[in-house]
Amino acid sequence: MDVSLMQVFVSEVAGTTLLLLLGAGVVANVILPGTKGFGGGWLLINFGWGLAVFAGVYAAYLSGAHLNFAVTIGLLANGADEYAPGVAVTAASTFVYLAAEMLGAFLGAVLAFLAYKKHFDEEADPGTKLAVFSTGPAVRSYGWNFVTEAIGTFVLVYVILMFAKNPANLGPLPVALLVVGIGASLGGPTGYAINPNRDLGPRIAHALLPIKGKGSSDWGYAWVPVLGPIVGGAIAGLLAQWTLDYLG
Amino acid sequence: MDVSLMQVFVSEVAGTTLLLLLGAGVVANVILPGTKGFGGGWLLINFGWGLAVFAGVYAAYLSGAHLNFAVTIGLLANGADEYAPGVAVTAASTFVYLAAEMLGAFLGAVLAFLAYKKHFDEEADPGTKLAVFSTGPAVRSYGWNFVTEAIGTFVLVYVILMFAKNPANLGPLPVALLVVGIGASLGGPTGYAINPNRDLGPRIAHALLPIKGKGSSDWGYAWVPVLGPIVGGAIAGLLAQWTLDYLG
Amino acid sequence: MDVSLMQVFVSEVAGTTLLLLLGAGVVANVILPGTKGFGGGWLLINFGWGLAVFAGVYAAYLSGAHLNFAVTIGLLANGADEYAPGVAVTAASTFVYLAAEMLGAFLGAVLAFLAYKKHFDEEADPGTKLAVFSTGPAVRSYGWNFVTEAIGTFVLVYVILMFAKNPANLGPLPVALLVVGIGASLGGPTGYAINPNRDLGPRIAHALLPIKGKGSSDWGYAWVPVLGPIVGGAIAGLLAQWTLDYLG
Amino acid sequence: MDVSLMQVFVSEVAGTTLLLLLGAGVVANVILPGTKGFGGGWLLINFGWGLAVFAGVYAAYLSGAHLNFAVTIGLLANGADEYAPGVAVTAASTFVYLAAEMLGAFLGAVLAFLAYKKHFDEEADPGTKLAVFSTGPAVRSYGWNFVTEAIGTFVLVYVILMFAKNPANLGPLPVALLVVGIGASLGGPTGYAINPNRDLGPRIAHALLPIKGKGSSDWGYAWVPVLGPIVGGAIAGLLAQWTLDYLG
Repeated sequence: MDVSLMQVFVSEVAGTTLLLLLGAGVVANVILPGTKGFGGGWLLINFGWGLAVFAGVYAAYLSGAHLNFAVTIGLLANGADEYAPGVAVTAASTFVYLAAEMLGAFLGAVLAFLAYKKHFDEEADPGTKLAVFSTGPAVRSYGWNFVTEAIGTFVLVYVILMFAKNPANLGPLPVALLVVGIGASLGGPTGYAINPNRDLGPRIAHALLPIKGKGSSDWGYAWVPVLGPIVGGAIAGLLAQWTLDYLG
Repeated sequence: MDVSLMQVFVSEVAGTTLLLLLGAGVVANVILPGTKGFGGGWLLINFGWGLAVFAGVYAAYLSGAHLNFAVTIGLLANGADEYAPGVAVTAASTFVYLAAEMLGAFLGAVLAFLAYKKHFDEEADPGTKLAVFSTGPAVRSYGWNFVTEAIGTFVLVYVILMFAKNPANLGPLPVALLVVGIGASLGGPTGYAINPNRDLGPRIAHALLPIKGKGSSDWGYAWVPVLGPIVGGAIAGLLAQWTLDYLG
Repeated sequence: MDVSLMQVFVSEVAGTTLLLLLGAGVVANVILPGTKGFGGGWLLINFGWGLAVFAGVYAAYLSGAHLNFAVTIGLLANGADEYAPGVAVTAASTFVYLAAEMLGAFLGAVLAFLAYKKHFDEEADPGTKLAVFSTGPAVRSYGWNFVTEAIGTFVLVYVILMFAKNPANLGPLPVALLVVGIGASLGGPTGYAINPNRDLGPRIAHALLPIKGKGSSDWGYAWVPVLGPIVGGAIAGLLAQWTLDYLG
Repeated sequence: MDVSLMQVFVSEVAGTTLLLLLGAGVVANVILPGTKGFGGGWLLINFGWGLAVFAGVYAAYLSGAHLNFAVTIGLLANGADEYAPGVAVTAASTFVYLAAEMLGAFLGAVLAFLAYKKHFDEEADPGTKLAVFSTGPAVRSYGWNFVTEAIGTFVLVYVILMFAKNPANLGPLPVALLVVGIGASLGGPTGYAINPNRDLGPRIAHALLPIKGKGSSDWGYAWVPVLGPIVGGAIAGLLAQWTLDYLG
């Protein structure tokens, strides 16, 4: 069955919108003033993001549920023929994934803003409000932050590519659990974007939305969670290709 | 195999009773004075509700385990022919789901009250005692609270309708995890009713039961977690129908 | 294939030993002085017990992994012909389950004591040391504590009996998650024995072991977590039989 | 299909590197100064390690994903003919597993150090920095610490060997959950190495890496998390062989 690029676009927008609605949502719940989950801790954030992936992957089944340009790049570097069954790897399809992932991430962040509107209206540090949308480093060091994002995304894309060798059929559950694990283990220094769209789309939303008392969108840092994941995803695609060729 | 409406009724009552017994139970455990789970945090509440769904869905297998009138409405809006294998969509069957979901939610809340009777007897804020039964907003704003409930229920019903496209057979586990995720991510502003019966049935129980030191049942808010989920579920049904038609 | 009663005995002892080693272990980790998990919270205890069931059920596959006399009683009340494939329901086999469950619970508690020996040697409230072995009520009220234990065990046995109607094949995972959920939701008042052997076997171990600074084994309460689960399990067996007959 | 020992080596290095990257990572996140997961609690550490196993097992599918010399020893004691399909049990293959597991553990710890480099640069107790790499006892008592490590590893290897009797096909999920459970329940006294390589490889990395303000690598304790797991794994292999023979 051939899948049209318009269908791919719709599918990835749907999935990435759910990803950011639930992903930005859990951060809002844990850090915005007055919510019921305020101060709920890192594991709550990890499960929220993992299950955001879970929901998004169900919605984007037709297009293979990339939801993340680092995954798209990883498949490209891996030498895949198709991005999903019936979706050939071409410059056009690559661009469609990128555009859909970006639009979905933007839309999901807007929906999360609406769901938490009354809590964005409360007094809070502008950095806290930005943190619902985009990641920021615990210790600012562009080089090392880049390394951390690249390592985290490497693990994500490499292990996803290894899923193909495992016969268990658990649907979207393994990638959800993998994201819980990467967040728990490698999210500490930078807040684990591990996905360029997850970070850049919502940062644009933050810049455009009329958020009460908002501050800078911190564009100086914005390249790190874009390039780090792309580099990490590309290395993962190359190394997974070599590994799978060698191990059979 | 044809399923009688009386069988549907029994099945949904059983499932919804378990849902509220465990769902109201985890809230009681976290917020009532002197319990062993007191102050256990938001993720504990999220897992408690998610696993309440897990248990309830096992019990209500025959009727498709709606347990939630927003799911029933979502299937109706989705244009389904059957609410479950052998259960035709009719006005009568719709009413049977509604009545059973409401009765089960009432009964489950009564059982949770009995399980935590000695802790309801302790001194506590009347709002705390109500919160075991029904949701209330973190920031009261009927319009925005409605939006939050509609968005959360939209995610629930939309993703459930997408499950049909995924070949993995995990039984009730995906819907349980989805509810953990929605609670983590979108429960912060209103406590995530995302189910009219889950809120209204126990609110009636709160009004009727002889709870020591109870206060108002907050009927002024009661329409929000009823209409928000119904509207969110209906939109999800319509949009899922369009999505599945378009994506194939 | 016929299974000998000696094989049933070995299988249930193995599973129940693992159940209590891990179950008493997680309580020790959270409440004994100086452990790495000290103060780790209720959800940690819930996952510890749920995964204790997970491990125990894998070990006791041959005998159907009751690990709990309330499950044995529930199957008896349910009118089952076999306790497991090849194990007929007889007075002798019922007794073998009971004896094995009791011995395994005792042995598991002894092993947990050895694993945490240096932490039992620390100064602590005698009630804390007892709580690693056996449950105790948050608010002592034998009648209501009995009700809570009966309700919790009812949920456990009823939903286990409903598993038979679900085609998903997840092995021991559903019962593990069910136990996480019951603990989260219904464990607040009494600490959820929901299993006579889980409570009585370790209480005997507490009475016999040379625990530094131990106090009373609280025999006055000991009947509650024995009879409550047996009554709850029996009611669950009867009601599940009716439900399954009626729903088909 | 025969698998070459070089392929086994690559496979085990890949899996064990991921195991330690994510495993040491979650500890770094919880205990190093200034991370986003700082103080995130024991359950976060348990899920981090469990999901580290999850990722590692996916990567090392070809070689049976031992990732742990206690598992290798357990299979040897169990009388297995093959360490994985196509990998015969020989002195040479045993040594290849050992070497690969050790190298992967070393490399994973180095990668975790790089991911958290800026947090290792902060002021912190030298013992805290060591604890990211290697385990240490809560109460130092070599004999009892050995007992705890042996018991925990026994549970790991025994239950893994029982997996063979369960028909559910969940891929790497059961072993991941088992490790979450062992950490929750038996990790309190020693921090659950339950794997000689997991402890010794990173301890060597700690000794060699230029970590700011590092202290002793605590070689006096290093034998405990090596010999304890080996003994526990060997006993588990022997007992599982007897159990499986007897139970059929």
